[in-house]
Amino acid sequence: MREYTTKYDDLYRVAKEMFMGLGYSDHQASTVTNCLVEADARHLHSHGVAAMMTYVSHLKAGNLRLDAPEPTTVFETPTSLVLDGHSGVGYVIADIAVKKTIQKAKKSGICITTVRQANHYGFAGHWPEMMAQEGLIGITCTNTVRCVCPTRSAERNMGTNPISVAFPTCGDEPMFLLDMATCVMAHGKLCRSQVFAESGVVPEEIIVDGKGRCLTDFKEALELLFHGDDRSDSPKPDTGGLLPLGGSTETHSGHKGYGLALLVELLTGGLAGGIPSKFIPLAHEGICFFFMAIDPVLFGDTKKVCEHVRNIIEEYRKTTPIDPDLPVLIPGDKERISRENALKNGIKLSPEIVEILREVARITNKEAQLESILERD
Amino acid sequence: MREYTTKYDDLYRVAKEMFMGLGYSDHQASTVTNCLVEADARHLHSHGVAAMMTYVSHLKAGNLRLDAPEPTTVFETPTSLVLDGHSGVGYVIADIAVKKTIQKAKKSGICITTVRQANHYGFAGHWPEMMAQEGLIGITCTNTVRCVCPTRSAERNMGTNPISVAFPTCGDEPMFLLDMATCVMAHGKLCRSQVFAESGVVPEEIIVDGKGRCLTDFKEALELLFHGDDRSDSPKPDTGGLLPLGGSTETHSGHKGYGLALLVELLTGGLAGGIPSKFIPLAHEGICFFFMAIDPVLFGDTKKVCEHVRNIIEEYRKTTPIDPDLPVLIPGDKERISRENALKNGIKLSPEIVEILREVARITNKEAQLESILERD
Repeated sequence: MREYTTKYDDLYRVAKEMFMGLGYSDHQASTVTNCLVEADARHLHSHGVAAMMTYVSHLKAGNLRLDAPEPTTVFETPTSLVLDGHSGVGYVIADIAVKKTIQKAKKSGICITTVRQANHYGFAGHWPEMMAQEGLIGITCTNTVRCVCPTRSAERNMGTNPISVAFPTCGDEPMFLLDMATCVMAHGKLCRSQVFAESGVVPEEIIVDGKGRCLTDFKEALELLFHGDDRSDSPKPDTGGLLPLGGSTETHSGHKGYGLALLVELLTGGLAGGIPSKFIPLAHEGICFFFMAIDPVLFGDTKKVCEHVRNIIEEYRKTTPIDPDLPVLIPGDKERISRENALKNGIKLSPEIVEILREVARITNKEAQLESILERD
Repeated sequence: MREYTTKYDDLYRVAKEMFMGLGYSDHQASTVTNCLVEADARHLHSHGVAAMMTYVSHLKAGNLRLDAPEPTTVFETPTSLVLDGHSGVGYVIADIAVKKTIQKAKKSGICITTVRQANHYGFAGHWPEMMAQEGLIGITCTNTVRCVCPTRSAERNMGTNPISVAFPTCGDEPMFLLDMATCVMAHGKLCRSQVFAESGVVPEEIIVDGKGRCLTDFKEALELLFHGDDRSDSPKPDTGGLLPLGGSTETHSGHKGYGLALLVELLTGGLAGGIPSKFIPLAHEGICFFFMAIDPVLFGDTKKVCEHVRNIIEEYRKTTPIDPDLPVLIPGDKERISRENALKNGIKLSPEIVEILREVARITNKEAQLESILERD
């Protein structure tokens, strides 16, 4: 399938214009667009510019409020902060929360911020990366709309509940950046899989039907996932969904992925006084965040701590691969390499993504601007 | 196979006597025995009294020092502590570290303690449970001897690297207590599996050989794991081992389990100035710990925060199971139920475990005491 190529800066400019055409302020549009284009550059297209169409429908339904007040402080101590996002733009709420977390951690050595009544914040790794760029260890997790079934159940009442952690390092070693959904395969990754679309088959142990049986037909899997999306926003639990990391059996420790997902529910909704994924409407309204920043200075001389972390990472980078063509990676490597390549050679967009962009361009009268930055391969 | 039953208090008393017979002080023996008997009561026999035999060999080899000085403070701030364990008894080091972490968190709201040059601390869940019993959110992880292979490699250079988190709740809802190795199946769980021993078969996607191929013959799997144990303590990497949570393929997200395991290496060895699992000799010497205690008061009124956490747990407890006889569990349920049963009806010990105990009893001249507390089913 022929793809399109566009330059990073061009995509940023036009996507931002489209967001402003939807009514986003300059600041809102630049914050959101930055995250989306960064995701596309890293080949994380499930969290890239194509998400724009989702926000169009959330705006229409009134679940995403561009005129929401700034996040307000619910509770604060020198090492913690609880914010209320008032259903505003998730990226803007997260950006404010992370900047405050960084500021407080630099002063107190450590800070945890929880946020309730927020909204989708894109790919989780963006936020710990911001903290690590400031020399701090960064941690985040978020609950999400429900699409995952707990171990022993076919009730879809948990989110993909990603956990992301970044460690600053030093010298040539890039930062450690783990960003993982706590299910076997994230919602967007399954839906946008070119491999599954072409073969029509989803491997076993990724998604189950309403009776807990593995679904392997790609179309059926999509129907099951999107059937939920088409339904009303009532919190009535749907059935069937993605399996937690480890899969369907306790022998292979599916209960560990479920345990991690439930941990995320407690760290986010639990500590923010917010709602769990089970009650998050399909429009993302009410999502809760958890952020933590830790200054390495808590453990001694910052430079020495970071060097020691780097040395350990380098030890694992030396691991002998089974196939010499598939080297052992450090979390963050894959996305960083994609990003470097995208900055040099442009961002690749599939025809499906371009079709979505064209639709938003029509709505926002940016058709000419969009076409001018797309190059067909 | 006929099992043995013994009373909790009896097992504690005799096991403690055996430890003292090995040269442990009263305090050392009670700290270790408490953790081991608690593990057996929870049906976590891989971390129960049978571990005693391992410590006998470590003592003999000089890798476990009963006369090690008390852990010393390497670095300290109001919210952090770095300790050096001087290769003493891991349980005693962890006990001191956790008590200090609790004390500091109660004063500062939060505390992270890292420990280098420690030793095996038993089942990880014990330590967050101590913190949650004091009303704090408790977190721990530890690196371990190497037995896990990173994604894309058959080099055994990571530990089972468990992560454990406890949340205090309130009312009738017991605490949330997640305790999970970051590999598909923990070393001890595989080795002591009655099911695998009887069938002779290990399911696919649990352990791989030196070329990265799944091993399914139980005897071969044991040989591979214990072959390592028989080798010298040099840090030369062995090959073949357990798979990270998610298994061997990236489609099923084995890289997430690997990412979590590497995260544990950075939080423990990295932040303690200690060594990674790759360099931990097979006698456990040099293991590093990470502990964090968070006072819920950081997020508002403690009672309200704990009630809110409880409400979310209760929401997930209501999840409809696929099989009504297999209810959806909350992390910690299984072990708590086993423990309650053991306190009421006694602790069950397999003939293999009893044989190990008899061996230690012979060494320590406690044969009569041991036999007097064992009842054959």
